[in-house]
Amino acid sequence: MAEPTADVEDPRLAAVAWARLAEPGDELAVGLVAALGPVAALAWLRREAWDPPAGEREPWERARARWRPRLDGLDPARELAQITRLGGTVLHPADRRWPRAFDDLGPRAPQCLWVRGDPELAAHAIEGGVAIVGARAATPYGEHVAFELAAALAGDGRVVVSGGAYGIDAVAHRASLAVNGPTVAVMAGGLDRFYPTGHTELLTRVAREGAVVSELGPGSAPSRSRFLTRNRLIAALAAACVVVEAGWRSGTMSTAQHAARLLRPVGAVPGPVTSASSAGCHRLLREQLAVCVTDAEEVRELVAELGPAATAGMERDRERDDSAVRLDDVPPGLAPREALVWEALPARGAAHPDSVVRVCGLAHGEVLAALGLLELRGHAVRDGDRVRRVAR
Amino acid sequence: MAEPTADVEDPRLAAVAWARLAEPGDELAVGLVAALGPVAALAWLRREAWDPPAGEREPWERARARWRPRLDGLDPARELAQITRLGGTVLHPADRRWPRAFDDLGPRAPQCLWVRGDPELAAHAIEGGVAIVGARAATPYGEHVAFELAAALAGDGRVVVSGGAYGIDAVAHRASLAVNGPTVAVMAGGLDRFYPTGHTELLTRVAREGAVVSELGPGSAPSRSRFLTRNRLIAALAAACVVVEAGWRSGTMSTAQHAARLLRPVGAVPGPVTSASSAGCHRLLREQLAVCVTDAEEVRELVAELGPAATAGMERDRERDDSAVRLDDVPPGLAPREALVWEALPARGAAHPDSVVRVCGLAHGEVLAALGLLELRGHAVRDGDRVRRVAR
Repeated sequence: MAEPTADVEDPRLAAVAWARLAEPGDELAVGLVAALGPVAALAWLRREAWDPPAGEREPWERARARWRPRLDGLDPARELAQITRLGGTVLHPADRRWPRAFDDLGPRAPQCLWVRGDPELAAHAIEGGVAIVGARAATPYGEHVAFELAAALAGDGRVVVSGGAYGIDAVAHRASLAVNGPTVAVMAGGLDRFYPTGHTELLTRVAREGAVVSELGPGSAPSRSRFLTRNRLIAALAAACVVVEAGWRSGTMSTAQHAARLLRPVGAVPGPVTSASSAGCHRLLREQLAVCVTDAEEVRELVAELGPAATAGMERDRERDDSAVRLDDVPPGLAPREALVWEALPARGAAHPDSVVRVCGLAHGEVLAALGLLELRGHAVRDGDRVRRVAR
Repeated sequence: MAEPTADVEDPRLAAVAWARLAEPGDELAVGLVAALGPVAALAWLRREAWDPPAGEREPWERARARWRPRLDGLDPARELAQITRLGGTVLHPADRRWPRAFDDLGPRAPQCLWVRGDPELAAHAIEGGVAIVGARAATPYGEHVAFELAAALAGDGRVVVSGGAYGIDAVAHRASLAVNGPTVAVMAGGLDRFYPTGHTELLTRVAREGAVVSELGPGSAPSRSRFLTRNRLIAALAAACVVVEAGWRSGTMSTAQHAARLLRPVGAVPGPVTSASSAGCHRLLREQLAVCVTDAEEVRELVAELGPAATAGMERDRERDDSAVRLDDVPPGLAPREALVWEALPARGAAHPDSVVRVCGLAHGEVLAALGLLELRGHAVRDGDRVRRVAR
């Protein structure tokens, strides 16, 4: 076991640490940090001596075994200095500029967001912004349509979100820049190097006039799995997602699926049935995951479907205190798993254990065990086949 | 008032007479003939002396005024001789070969069906056959896709139904002929002359190897309104309808709308959003009137949605007696409107007047008046806000 580094007291640095300790989409880590706050969660991870209650040891020991080796050499302050040297910054969930749209990801939310460029821009994407995504192997037809759409939508002042890749993504960013509109590129690796290398100039311009963001710290290399997990951020940030061209099986399809799961309206641009680059779009239409969109006006209609709820929710969330730690809600003395499960119970009313499983991202058996312990300790009570919190 | 021609006793000739007396889609005529049979309905039309009950005179006198002038010179036997000379025939609803799929049209069903070619073929279209329709102003892309689809589907032995027009229609017929598959062309005018003239050779071949059909007798010229009413027959005959290319507002869109109303699955082939010839297809997809189809296999899936119910219904209907007249069900002594409304009441159970309105195609006030008279005469009885037949 590596020697743990010094304690971290700053929530932002602790969030950066957690982004390094846990892979993107590690639901246990997100749930733990959400329940305890990043500082306390980190402190727990460091305490060799901590002894989970009998019967709960195994999952937490597995998680600790996964995270603790990465404590070695962990230096969030150095990472922050790196991004600062590049003119960038890092946001954590308690930051006023944090994209509240990420809350919709629940246990799959990122731990922090590295930004080069305007640190406010990503949070504005949910206010009518559009993710315009598509095939790297785009056709001239697809590039033409992507340009028309992105230029019109960015011209409205809508944030155009994409992934900075070759093909449709690049056209979406370029078109936004061409009309001096706002655009955000979400990377699958650290922001110290832009990927793909051939887009260094484009992404440097996006960083200067818009924003390039990532959940991964400096030095993290993009990988296939990181591209796929990155796609959930593209889908979550924008108010709607439009697929311009996509192969039958492609990363772009995963972005559309994430968007649909997040209840973001999804549009697909049709094309010739003779073009393999449109096969994914037609599949989305056939499976009714997407609505057929043929011009910017139809995309605006699509966004309008989401209604004002998204921005209203955003305003409400912004009024929250900046302090990261929601720990004061959780009864003191709970082990991390019980704290997670307690957090997953609704503040008012009762919840079925299945819904708790979905909210907290733990296994079914783990949730049942934790609920039993919470009940034994008087923090929760059965209500038919549901469970409710006990108010203190 | 013209001198009425001699009485007609043959149901087939009487049906031919009615096709001449009433324009396609004249719901009052269809309802009358369905209730009384074509022979008795014709006899009623001829009786100058018939006196409708007080308060019912007006609508029937209006209808008589519309139909009676056409009694002048009416000669169904001559029309039959004309089609026979051309090697054709005419079907009426009591004919074993009558397409039972027309029953789904209710009061908008045709009175008879003129046929040049195989007189059985039109009835088989509902057994997995597909209407392939589209723009006259087709692009090479649309013609390519239409050919591929029609050749594959006709190659299955499915009847390909279309309208014989330039563009997509012609390609659909040609592709079917190319694979020696069955195809039916539905005309908007009489079968003594094929329209458009430029398709005389194509349609002659369709008549020789498939069938060319129309609800209009020899000598009837096609008109804009007849094209639109013809489209309901294309939609009704086939088990599904596929739109290959269509302008935003076009006759093709009306065929798709008819098909949707008849609960036939509708498919639309997407194309470039930059092509005006695909705008109608994309509109159908956006309005969710159509499913996106990109190849023959997806059209087969579309047809399968209809399930075996259509053909099962067909078999059952074929077992019906050949006699046209369902008059024996109707209580004797009823005026035509009451007979229509009585027919529209379900054989078992009660119906709301609104549903009777839908079934018989009469105006709401007319239906209420007729229901009142039926009740007074003991042929119907109220049951809450519904009405049921009184069994004799």
